[in-house]
Amino acid sequence: MSYFDAASAAPLHPVARQGLLAALDEGWADPSRLYREGRRARLLLDAARATAAEAVGCRPDELVFTSSGTRAVHDGVAGAAAGRRRVGRHLIVSSVEHSSVLHSAERHTAAGGSVTEVAVGRTGAVDAGEYARALRPDTALACLQSANHEVGTEQPVTEVAEACRAAGVPLLVDAAQSLGWAPVPGPWSLLAASAHKWGGPAGVGLLVVRKGVRFAPQGPADERESGRAAGFENLPAIVAAAASLRAVRAEAAAEAARLRELTERIRARVPELVADVEVVGDPLRRLPGIVTFSCLYVDGETLLHELDRAGFSVSSGSSCTSSTLTPSHVLRAMGVLSEGNVRVSLPPGTPAEDVERFLAALPGVVSGVRERVGAPVGAAPAAPGTDAAAAAGEPGGAPSGPGAGERVVDAVGRRCPIPVIELARVIGQVPVGGTVRVLADDEAARLDIPAWCEMRGQRYLGEEPADRGSAYLVRRVS
Amino acid sequence: MSYFDAASAAPLHPVARQGLLAALDEGWADPSRLYREGRRARLLLDAARATAAEAVGCRPDELVFTSSGTRAVHDGVAGAAAGRRRVGRHLIVSSVEHSSVLHSAERHTAAGGSVTEVAVGRTGAVDAGEYARALRPDTALACLQSANHEVGTEQPVTEVAEACRAAGVPLLVDAAQSLGWAPVPGPWSLLAASAHKWGGPAGVGLLVVRKGVRFAPQGPADERESGRAAGFENLPAIVAAAASLRAVRAEAAAEAARLRELTERIRARVPELVADVEVVGDPLRRLPGIVTFSCLYVDGETLLHELDRAGFSVSSGSSCTSSTLTPSHVLRAMGVLSEGNVRVSLPPGTPAEDVERFLAALPGVVSGVRERVGAPVGAAPAAPGTDAAAAAGEPGGAPSGPGAGERVVDAVGRRCPIPVIELARVIGQVPVGGTVRVLADDEAARLDIPAWCEMRGQRYLGEEPADRGSAYLVRRVS
Repeated sequence: MSYFDAASAAPLHPVARQGLLAALDEGWADPSRLYREGRRARLLLDAARATAAEAVGCRPDELVFTSSGTRAVHDGVAGAAAGRRRVGRHLIVSSVEHSSVLHSAERHTAAGGSVTEVAVGRTGAVDAGEYARALRPDTALACLQSANHEVGTEQPVTEVAEACRAAGVPLLVDAAQSLGWAPVPGPWSLLAASAHKWGGPAGVGLLVVRKGVRFAPQGPADERESGRAAGFENLPAIVAAAASLRAVRAEAAAEAARLRELTERIRARVPELVADVEVVGDPLRRLPGIVTFSCLYVDGETLLHELDRAGFSVSSGSSCTSSTLTPSHVLRAMGVLSEGNVRVSLPPGTPAEDVERFLAALPGVVSGVRERVGAPVGAAPAAPGTDAAAAAGEPGGAPSGPGAGERVVDAVGRRCPIPVIELARVIGQVPVGGTVRVLADDEAARLDIPAWCEMRGQRYLGEEPADRGSAYLVRRVS
Repeated sequence: MSYFDAASAAPLHPVARQGLLAALDEGWADPSRLYREGRRARLLLDAARATAAEAVGCRPDELVFTSSGTRAVHDGVAGAAAGRRRVGRHLIVSSVEHSSVLHSAERHTAAGGSVTEVAVGRTGAVDAGEYARALRPDTALACLQSANHEVGTEQPVTEVAEACRAAGVPLLVDAAQSLGWAPVPGPWSLLAASAHKWGGPAGVGLLVVRKGVRFAPQGPADERESGRAAGFENLPAIVAAAASLRAVRAEAAAEAARLRELTERIRARVPELVADVEVVGDPLRRLPGIVTFSCLYVDGETLLHELDRAGFSVSSGSSCTSSTLTPSHVLRAMGVLSEGNVRVSLPPGTPAEDVERFLAALPGVVSGVRERVGAPVGAAPAAPGTDAAAAAGEPGGAPSGPGAGERVVDAVGRRCPIPVIELARVIGQVPVGGTVRVLADDEAARLDIPAWCEMRGQRYLGEEPADRGSAYLVRRVS
């Protein structure tokens, strides 16, 4: 098996395992107690905090250990927003944040606050200037990830942090994906991270609140961790988390270069090996180990299963792989294809051979899946058919009801990738200038039909309400 | 070293250690993923849930794993109260609940709810009838611990649960101290527990919400653990927690009998070995491993240090051992002596010899501490002195200003146990019927002066405001 889903959870680093085992024996007692076992636990906790703070680049008393990265984000957003309630109740996030940030924003809205979601470009990055323009006099808090968890794109954190500082607004950085690689640059105010993303154990997050940042912990009081993380300290895991962070950092520069070369191979070769693929995310400003691509005419869930059978564990932002049957909000915000989506995130230490095996296996797996769903063969649209309606043609213009120069594809009730497959099958049957109207109620169609047009050089005319779902209009231009 | 503080945190059970190690290898991946490692993690999680549910006596889908017992209580109280908001915003707790429950109640009050704190008797138990009388038509939730964490007294959970059911009010049971010994009886609705109290690892709590109980999780949404516990599952620790719960339960009956005999020895022999000791908590309806006593004229912090030097790790509810310099709220609610307080909580497996060593060491340790603070020697008050003011005497009656038959002890600025020591020193200098007025600003005096009177057979007349702190009036009656 090759495990290529480090962005979800990295396998335990050997140093984490050692730290955990040692601390199980030495660090099970309550660090607030005065007796020997308690004092020993306190020493371990203090040492872990100092180690983690050094890796973050903060003071030890600015850092608390939470029970997960999600909790660090939830409690960080809530505490910082509450601490600046007098300033206002406006919150800024990017549209591609982790769900823990977006759910915190929803909660903030439900409680009467307002939220600005800063859009991203097609690579998944916010524009620093645009982010800065979202800052308002009543902005209590701004949030930005250091790098995206689905496509690996790095955000302009330094520039945004500087703009926030200039405006007197604290910036919370979700550093979950990047902290194992390097400290977060720039004058940020709060930081959240998650140990199991860097090879530490589950059950440990970091929440850093810089001195001088107003912070009002929410929820019931609890004296542990400076009142910022309720519950008995998970000390063995904390010790393991800190030790492994130091260890991965020591290896980070060399390993980053190595993984970057491996993901570059995937970025370059997948489009050569597999037709109709879109590699997404920024090609340069990106994390070393993450590469994401989407395959036209492919059902993501089947693709994941087939890759699993072939020995590769990857994740996907395709709608059919989520419980809500909607495509990943990240892919949606980027406006890129979501069908047949594959995120490869290499854990440190991944052998180059594993990546080569993946590249060797992928084309066969994709074509097998495409065959099964009846995907069109070849990249270019087929020649115009002799279909009467299509032949009638219709000059370009705004979307309108089905007309003479239009073909209708009824894909209502059909799931991704069928609506796009049907569109591809029919487009060749209308003349250049003619339109195809795709009726679909699958959420992915909203994203994938425009993305298909972009990839295929056809013109997406827009969406109209329909009896069930929506009608998506596409004009054939080539 | 003998570690006698299992009620704070129990050393890791060997089965927990094994489970943790195995799951570090098998259970680090994300259980919501579709690939092999994810499916394996999911199987482990499901199995752990089934095991824990069996031990609790609930359905697996009623139980979620939280990141600590404190989080289980916080989220359980908040979710249940919110779920029944339409019924009302009244909450019931006992006055001796764990701080996580009382802090949740404070939070509830701060958010506009109302709270009834049901008092306990001198043994630390609520009266079930009194608890039932606190139920109101607008009661959203009632909370009661299964057994007290400081004195070991069991609460009448079955009776209270039945009263709650009759009133249609859900009862949340904090089973942190008892779940390792047995399931909680009675028709309770919610249950919270903490793995590191039964020998499981830190970082795992249980929250059980019975089917049919209205529950509205608070905080930002998160799809994990039925939406009731945010954050990536701490799977290795969850596996270890469930396995160790099953293991300790298998040993519970025999070990409970053994520990009960050991704590009974302490209960019986400490008062024989050490003068002026009050053993607190219910002598019969109690947890097997906990025994608590208080020693007059002893500074709790020094006592803990000396016991630690002698090789015994215990905890204390004395004011001088808390960061707030107030005595434990449990001892306060019980109205028992707080000075020189020692809680012995034996972990399963404690050898009888360790308890014997403790009983052998305690008298010397206590007398050493007493000597250092200048405690009165012997139990009975000294003969009346010839002090003029004391000799004047004053007949019994309500507290009043310093009079002719009264001695004033100025202990302002002096910490526990000094005010009580001064009182004991002076009481013999007033005639029977005379009074002593103790001026003190130490919080412990409010509890310990009445408790001293109770133990010594003197009459406590009450408290009056004074320039600094309070004046406590005591009449000598023997």
